[in-house]
Amino acid sequence: MKTYKLIDNPSRKLWDSLCMRPLLDHQNLKNLCREVFESVSIKKDVALLAYTEKFDQVKLSSIYLDEKELQKNAYQIDEPLKIAINQAYENISQFHIAQIPQAVKLETFPGVFCTQEFRAIEKVGLYIPGGSAPLFSTLLMLAIPAQIVGCKEVVLCTPVNRSGKIDAALCYAAQLCGIKQILKLGGVQAIAALSQGTERTSPVYKIFGPGNQYVVAAKQYAQEQGVAIDLPAGPSEVLVIADDSANPDFIAADLLSQAEHGPDSQVVLLVTNVDILEQVMLKLDEQLESLPRRNIVKLALSQSRFIVFDDLDTCIDFSNVYAPEHLILSIDKADSYLSSIQNAGSVFVGNYSPESAGDYASGTNHTLPTNGYAKSYSGVNIDAFLKKITFQKLTAKGIAKISPIVETMAKAEGLEAHALASRLRREFVENKGE
Amino acid sequence: MKTYKLIDNPSRKLWDSLCMRPLLDHQNLKNLCREVFESVSIKKDVALLAYTEKFDQVKLSSIYLDEKELQKNAYQIDEPLKIAINQAYENISQFHIAQIPQAVKLETFPGVFCTQEFRAIEKVGLYIPGGSAPLFSTLLMLAIPAQIVGCKEVVLCTPVNRSGKIDAALCYAAQLCGIKQILKLGGVQAIAALSQGTERTSPVYKIFGPGNQYVVAAKQYAQEQGVAIDLPAGPSEVLVIADDSANPDFIAADLLSQAEHGPDSQVVLLVTNVDILEQVMLKLDEQLESLPRRNIVKLALSQSRFIVFDDLDTCIDFSNVYAPEHLILSIDKADSYLSSIQNAGSVFVGNYSPESAGDYASGTNHTLPTNGYAKSYSGVNIDAFLKKITFQKLTAKGIAKISPIVETMAKAEGLEAHALASRLRREFVENKGE
Repeated sequence: MKTYKLIDNPSRKLWDSLCMRPLLDHQNLKNLCREVFESVSIKKDVALLAYTEKFDQVKLSSIYLDEKELQKNAYQIDEPLKIAINQAYENISQFHIAQIPQAVKLETFPGVFCTQEFRAIEKVGLYIPGGSAPLFSTLLMLAIPAQIVGCKEVVLCTPVNRSGKIDAALCYAAQLCGIKQILKLGGVQAIAALSQGTERTSPVYKIFGPGNQYVVAAKQYAQEQGVAIDLPAGPSEVLVIADDSANPDFIAADLLSQAEHGPDSQVVLLVTNVDILEQVMLKLDEQLESLPRRNIVKLALSQSRFIVFDDLDTCIDFSNVYAPEHLILSIDKADSYLSSIQNAGSVFVGNYSPESAGDYASGTNHTLPTNGYAKSYSGVNIDAFLKKITFQKLTAKGIAKISPIVETMAKAEGLEAHALASRLRREFVENKGE
Repeated sequence: MKTYKLIDNPSRKLWDSLCMRPLLDHQNLKNLCREVFESVSIKKDVALLAYTEKFDQVKLSSIYLDEKELQKNAYQIDEPLKIAINQAYENISQFHIAQIPQAVKLETFPGVFCTQEFRAIEKVGLYIPGGSAPLFSTLLMLAIPAQIVGCKEVVLCTPVNRSGKIDAALCYAAQLCGIKQILKLGGVQAIAALSQGTERTSPVYKIFGPGNQYVVAAKQYAQEQGVAIDLPAGPSEVLVIADDSANPDFIAADLLSQAEHGPDSQVVLLVTNVDILEQVMLKLDEQLESLPRRNIVKLALSQSRFIVFDDLDTCIDFSNVYAPEHLILSIDKADSYLSSIQNAGSVFVGNYSPESAGDYASGTNHTLPTNGYAKSYSGVNIDAFLKKITFQKLTAKGIAKISPIVETMAKAEGLEAHALASRLRREFVENKGE
């Protein structure tokens, strides 16, 4: 990293190109998804077992992790990890409970009572990828809100590891969150199982969770088939804004922790002077050598953007155009800039707030909009597991009084039956003399 | 309508097929959408004018409705309609203001402060279809919440009518909602203009509003390109549950007001005895003859489903499986069933609450999930114009105390740099003795 390209005060015309993300195109996987979904919808578990053998080279006797196996696996968790997960569970629960919305009740007009209530989405599917390490933290982020709102059915899909098992920490987290239905499935077939149902689980209404390009393509396909999904996909990203008050050691570690997610991770650093950047680079080199995932990290860093702007306000403006998944503000008086943050997934304020705190244990959710989607999407929060339904009840007086308004508007839109449905009730009330 | 098919106590096995909606497939319009979007992204207004001439046979000199023309058109609204729209505006505003969420602030762990705040989506596009009548009510439903939350840019697209103008009521409603940017565009090119921007308007982040199959296909295409949309599409629908306390005249008018939306409108009536159904049918025949749109109505009714169940609980169960856009409860003690409603867009409670009240003036939003999407989606409400962002700030004590948890979890997931970012801060605080 001794050489890096510094972008010096780019003009606004260049911002759009500096904010570009890698193009994602999963259209080529669509035929595969269609085949797997159709096969799973007809042959259910037989198809799921066959695809798992074909794609994952794993021969399962059953796709279901039974209660005994769950308990046995969960029991094997290390004690310090168990204690850590318990505390994270506690913090995440608290912050998500605090987000539960209030019902809205209002008499909008004399005799017209409108309410908005929420209901849990009854059936949700959670996908947790396999790979080198079990992402039990992501399971906590998705299963805790589902548990809080009381989704009736929560189906977890995760592939078995190299020893043919589901990891202890994952099982422990699942147990903690009250998950009863666990399918040993990964990839396209896992998303097909969630969408189409299996012999023991019903199709879910919404699918949550990250995954590789196959999972992303399958979630997209599921969405086209009418199943809701949590968020559109994109590689993880961080934008760090640092001024003279920043600690270069901390910044370097923050950049590395983003970069270690994968070679396509997006790392952007904005600074208000070049000195801090040079110090960060020195620290990067130092820290990098100790990391087991340094090859991935180097690839991601080679794509990173280092930009210097004259002032903090311009940094914030640029960040709002970039709309980062994670925004770290290592700047003096960071609090005074928060109201200017328009587009971001989650914001880490000040020198003692690393992204990893939010990734694991502070209480905020780490499933966040990437790829600029923070301009229009929220990260996963309690709302993602709810639907809001409106109700209205009109009294005799209410319909008599509001009906002329409804009739006038309906007729002006040429919808005579709409006017009629209101008028008949008004006349009924008037005739009854209520 | 003298003949109708009554479905008598269908077994649960048949419910899924009774809840089927028409299949929507807009894949065949995808190439058209791609062509229009690409052309608009390059040639902007020149392309928009050309497509409007080609698809709509309308030759415009400019796609923009200027302030003067807006005022002039709006001024021509009928006085009674103006008064009605003013009252609807008032009621809808009140109910949506009441939905504005509270910020969440919490110390989840000693020294760990998490907050969730909301921000308006900065740029939104509203589409209002043309056709036989101007849907000013839909404009109110979309523009009022945008105005309340303070979206910075609101771009309205609507095609001109046969006289080459934008209707007075639509202009009046736009003015009332503070809309400044109005494009005289319809169809695929309108959605392309919103997504790609024009010479005077920037690309929007989210598109709202109904439309024909071209608009639906274009919104789907925009979504694939990264623009958020309000809701997946489907024809409008109502499910009415009626018992002996229902008024057949009211029910008939409610069914007709759904049916008049279009030949693909979905009408479902559940009753607890056959007598009420027969009375409704008589009233339907009576009312039908007076309707200007009776041909459309007859087509829709020919596809409708009339089902008798022995008890109200089963009616509610069926409704939850169907997940109707609109649910009308014309039943005794309707209030006592509300907590059992799991899946519905908007619910109309009791004999004096016609759907048309909610469609126009009571205050609830009429942009609602169709096609069974009420199982996982909410109707448009204030949230649809907001994003929620989380923030966290840890004190020195906070990071020192939570860091061991973060480090343990990060290491167990194999993410060493994540652990490092936390550990460096913890050690710094410990060394400083803070």
